[in-house]
Amino acid sequence: MKITENLMEIINKISPPNKEIASSAQQKLNNLTKPRGSLGILEECAIKYLSIRGNMNAKLENTYILTFAGDHGVAEEGVSAFPQEVTTQMLKNFANGGAAINVLSKHANAKLKVIDVGVAGDYNHPSIIKNKIAKGTANFAKTPAMTQEDCCRAIMAGAKIAEECINEGADLICTGDMGIANTTSSAAIYSILLDLPAEEIVGRGTGIDDQRLRKKIEIVNLAREKYSKLKSDPLAVMAAVGGFEIAAICGAIIQSAERKIPIMIDGFISGAAALTAIKLKNEILDYCFFSHLSAENGHSKALKLMGVKPLLSLDLRLGEGTGAALAIHIVSASIKIINQMATFSSANVSTEI
Amino acid sequence: MKITENLMEIINKISPPNKEIASSAQQKLNNLTKPRGSLGILEECAIKYLSIRGNMNAKLENTYILTFAGDHGVAEEGVSAFPQEVTTQMLKNFANGGAAINVLSKHANAKLKVIDVGVAGDYNHPSIIKNKIAKGTANFAKTPAMTQEDCCRAIMAGAKIAEECINEGADLICTGDMGIANTTSSAAIYSILLDLPAEEIVGRGTGIDDQRLRKKIEIVNLAREKYSKLKSDPLAVMAAVGGFEIAAICGAIIQSAERKIPIMIDGFISGAAALTAIKLKNEILDYCFFSHLSAENGHSKALKLMGVKPLLSLDLRLGEGTGAALAIHIVSASIKIINQMATFSSANVSTEI
Repeated sequence: MKITENLMEIINKISPPNKEIASSAQQKLNNLTKPRGSLGILEECAIKYLSIRGNMNAKLENTYILTFAGDHGVAEEGVSAFPQEVTTQMLKNFANGGAAINVLSKHANAKLKVIDVGVAGDYNHPSIIKNKIAKGTANFAKTPAMTQEDCCRAIMAGAKIAEECINEGADLICTGDMGIANTTSSAAIYSILLDLPAEEIVGRGTGIDDQRLRKKIEIVNLAREKYSKLKSDPLAVMAAVGGFEIAAICGAIIQSAERKIPIMIDGFISGAAALTAIKLKNEILDYCFFSHLSAENGHSKALKLMGVKPLLSLDLRLGEGTGAALAIHIVSASIKIINQMATFSSANVSTEI
Repeated sequence: MKITENLMEIINKISPPNKEIASSAQQKLNNLTKPRGSLGILEECAIKYLSIRGNMNAKLENTYILTFAGDHGVAEEGVSAFPQEVTTQMLKNFANGGAAINVLSKHANAKLKVIDVGVAGDYNHPSIIKNKIAKGTANFAKTPAMTQEDCCRAIMAGAKIAEECINEGADLICTGDMGIANTTSSAAIYSILLDLPAEEIVGRGTGIDDQRLRKKIEIVNLAREKYSKLKSDPLAVMAAVGGFEIAAICGAIIQSAERKIPIMIDGFISGAAALTAIKLKNEILDYCFFSHLSAENGHSKALKLMGVKPLLSLDLRLGEGTGAALAIHIVSASIKIINQMATFSSANVSTEI
């Protein structure tokens, strides 16, 4: 397929961040008026950010939050506390500025783009970007969620939006999601790619009761049995159990890494997209900041297996990009620290005894 | 002493936050377009902030960071990686805008006030507020650090600055510290008030080697033996082993609580001041946000014993108010969430099935 070739072309171009910049940044931090290393994770963020950008003078002034929306056939199994129409209704809420991500992206001084890549209902508004692959995925408890071609289309839709933002000057891309039942799809991705029984990764999502939780676990375990043979083919796993918005997030991550623009991963859903991207090309990991540890069961285990430490831990379980939006402040602080603090010699401050 | 009476008068006026507002805030949050409770700690912050202010319409727009500086006689025991003159040199760095707290307070859109309450050297600059009680404390390894009267003067100096900020319209007060050797004094406070052996609370501060660490532990254990009989008299403990800047932070906390203005506690040093304030009046705990878990050994244990959960955990160990500055963003986000998000009914979004 031409579309898979286009995707592979982007993936093949991804190369590691700049090691020389990382070591220059470390040196610069060591000379600032503070005990060495005393700004902890802030220092790590500055080093990571600058080495990704490959430029000691890179600023962080133009952040985009991409919230991808899609519906999930598996919702018909009763795995969410909310009805499927909420995905469409939330598009309207995003357009009207009433959702949490509207408030938090404004708070973070970030530009929010909401993209419909596969919502079942229709909602049209100038502020909602339409790139609908289909009206929701198929129910993966019965058949694969997407054809491999549609899955690749969703990935490329995400890549395209990220590219547009980068062309507009984005220096940080944040991911976000909206899609009723998408913790079920994400749990299935984690379960297959990380080889975890459903019990260890499935959580209560929007807040389901014990009965729905048992059903959700059963569905994910069945999907794992059926599709674990695809484990070494992340695109096939995404097509089998993923979602249009999860695939699109994966595409945005891949494209940003190729363009050497850091990506801030939101929580559980975006994490499943990041995992897929990393399984496609391991170097992508070095381009990702993980914004927060979700309250969703299993996220902690998944992040540990991925070898990453999230920046925040605020018991969030909302998605939309809300955790990513909050974590921008930390990375942005780190860049100001390295750019604006005085050195021991410039400030005439004595160094260690 | 008149000054102790003045302090006790403030403490006696402190009453708990408003419970009705807390329950109204909880109800309001439950109706916003998100799964119930899905914004986790953000929701807790909004409830706490509004109930402290006693007003559902309270905004958070005017934050002050108070960085108190003082020197410590115990520095002569060689318990820090930096020489004592760094405290004075850092005053100049604060005045020139080159320190981490300058960068981070600007990033947080907060007003920074630096107050010399007991620095050994002299540095005069219009932007440094002078309220020097003495040129550093005495070495508490030999004699009590301060007289009880000087200690109360420092507390009242902190209270006075907080009051001025509140009169100027502060709606959040953040605490910060600068003082070579002040992790030693703070560790001694924790050790006595929480009844902890020095080994469990003393850390490497600015980054001392094993030899200095052993010395530091020895000094704190000796102070604990000598002064543990004062345990039930927090002011006496502060005078015996504390510092002018720690006492001033304690005063700022007390005054803010009395005026029903929330306080954002920085890390290890500010935490020792907060502990002292809480031991003086338990209700003060309800007025404090704890910004971050410091990388300093023992902070985690101390916070646990105090029954509090910090907002951030970024391996910071710098002080100055840097952790508090970073955490403002979280509380401020929480207030925007409760004030600006749409409700299920206003946005026509379906509620749970």
